[in-house]
Amino acid sequence: MTSTALNSCSGRTFVWPVRVYWEDTDAGGIVYYANYLKYMERARTEWLRALGCDQTAMRTRHRIQFVVARASVEFRRPARFDDRLEIDIRLQALRRVSIELAQHVRNAERELLCRAEVKIGCVDVESFRPRGIPLSLQQELEIEH
Amino acid sequence: MTSTALNSCSGRTFVWPVRVYWEDTDAGGIVYYANYLKYMERARTEWLRALGCDQTAMRTRHRIQFVVARASVEFRRPARFDDRLEIDIRLQALRRVSIELAQHVRNAERELLCRAEVKIGCVDVESFRPRGIPLSLQQELEIEH
Amino acid sequence: MTSTALNSCSGRTFVWPVRVYWEDTDAGGIVYYANYLKYMERARTEWLRALGCDQTAMRTRHRIQFVVARASVEFRRPARFDDRLEIDIRLQALRRVSIELAQHVRNAERELLCRAEVKIGCVDVESFRPRGIPLSLQQELEIEH
Amino acid sequence: MTSTALNSCSGRTFVWPVRVYWEDTDAGGIVYYANYLKYMERARTEWLRALGCDQTAMRTRHRIQFVVARASVEFRRPARFDDRLEIDIRLQALRRVSIELAQHVRNAERELLCRAEVKIGCVDVESFRPRGIPLSLQQELEIEH
Repeated sequence: MTSTALNSCSGRTFVWPVRVYWEDTDAGGIVYYANYLKYMERARTEWLRALGCDQTAMRTRHRIQFVVARASVEFRRPARFDDRLEIDIRLQALRRVSIELAQHVRNAERELLCRAEVKIGCVDVESFRPRGIPLSLQQELEIEH
Repeated sequence: MTSTALNSCSGRTFVWPVRVYWEDTDAGGIVYYANYLKYMERARTEWLRALGCDQTAMRTRHRIQFVVARASVEFRRPARFDDRLEIDIRLQALRRVSIELAQHVRNAERELLCRAEVKIGCVDVESFRPRGIPLSLQQELEIEH
Repeated sequence: MTSTALNSCSGRTFVWPVRVYWEDTDAGGIVYYANYLKYMERARTEWLRALGCDQTAMRTRHRIQFVVARASVEFRRPARFDDRLEIDIRLQALRRVSIELAQHVRNAERELLCRAEVKIGCVDVESFRPRGIPLSLQQELEIEH
Repeated sequence: MTSTALNSCSGRTFVWPVRVYWEDTDAGGIVYYANYLKYMERARTEWLRALGCDQTAMRTRHRIQFVVARASVEFRRPARFDDRLEIDIRLQALRRVSIELAQHVRNAERELLCRAEVKIGCVDVESFRPRGIPLSLQQELEIEH
């Protein structure tokens, strides 16, 4: 699996490939709508990894984790079993305790299937109260932005 | 399982109970964010059933089905294993080929965990092009509205 | 939702109802095979609850949890969207650190869709090493047996 | 993504890599047991693809599809978020309407997490009655065997 970092007007776009398996589809013959959110989360996990962020260490050492605070998703065209999709991510806003991302899902023909705006918050693993994003990650995100 | 229809200022609210099982949670100790969309779809299916809509007949006889066109979800508080949740639905807008719904997820203490605005479109099962919502369902939805 | 406890030659059978939603199906038009294991786990959770076992307390107070050690599943007939299923459980063997269960999935016509033998082990939440099933649950299980 | 075909005493082993994401874990901190069956199905899909089998064409042109008839799974050790797993497949038996496979899930340290015996049947997409495996695939499978 490869990830691509492309330069664009401002900021960078991270891209992650996903294959559609039987588990992802429903009896309507297409990818079940909630499963696009799984794809988008996989891409965010790989993006964080590419930025040097170890989510397991965040949880066990710093006792913080990321949670999704808001997701607005538009479903444009269906994906089907065996389709090869690309999920992209672009950082839209960076704050002390949260980030906002734009994400797109495209098929092999580069058609837009799905677009989303996602707000991620950094919280305490016990209380779920807001906590600052680790400084090292803040610095990496500023470069992305 | 029981569904409750409560009168409110205008329109009615349908409520569907859901229990959180292991399958719904993630290693963060809470319900995985995409799974709230499953809960909301279960409630929509039961709401349609309560309105006399047989989705299997829609597909096989009329060759149409509902798809989610847009979902905007705010995640406020986490749910955990074994929690009893209530998912509600209220019709916000009714058009010839689509409907808009407001949905809330609350826990047993009536705390708001999650709120969503969801747009559902009626489409051809093959082409996925917009098709009119069946008249009998249109009439039921007008009463709801 | 109701659970039924029926007497039979030896031991008792616990039954839990499940409805098939879009999330459970795949593009083959039927319930995705791994999802029967989710249904069976829901039934086990409700069976444990009916026996007075609070799995959250087990984890937080006693630092133990149940894990599936083995599952042998035969898939006989497909279930489809909107089907009403019944999942049953019967205790087959009771040991100090594990239990064995027989589970069946039937549809509304009482046809057998799926049968399974499942071995559940009680383990430490950190080390995943075998630990004794709590005595209070052992006693309840002996009555079931 | 790469697949490896290793020679062994008799027959060949196909290997498919999988990464554990949040969606795969549960509040016990480990991969939810039913999700190993998803991993194993992904590997089978990629194995069939490597053998030249196009499952979409099978469904639409030949009106047949594969279904799981039996799965016996032993869960030995837990996998956790971010783990890199390898799923292998080896053909055990080849019949006119079914095949039997042995599958293993191992982590990056080559520890065995999970092993399974899986029987796959070829059926008509409507009636779900047994149908012969396509000859071209039969021939490929004989080479594997």
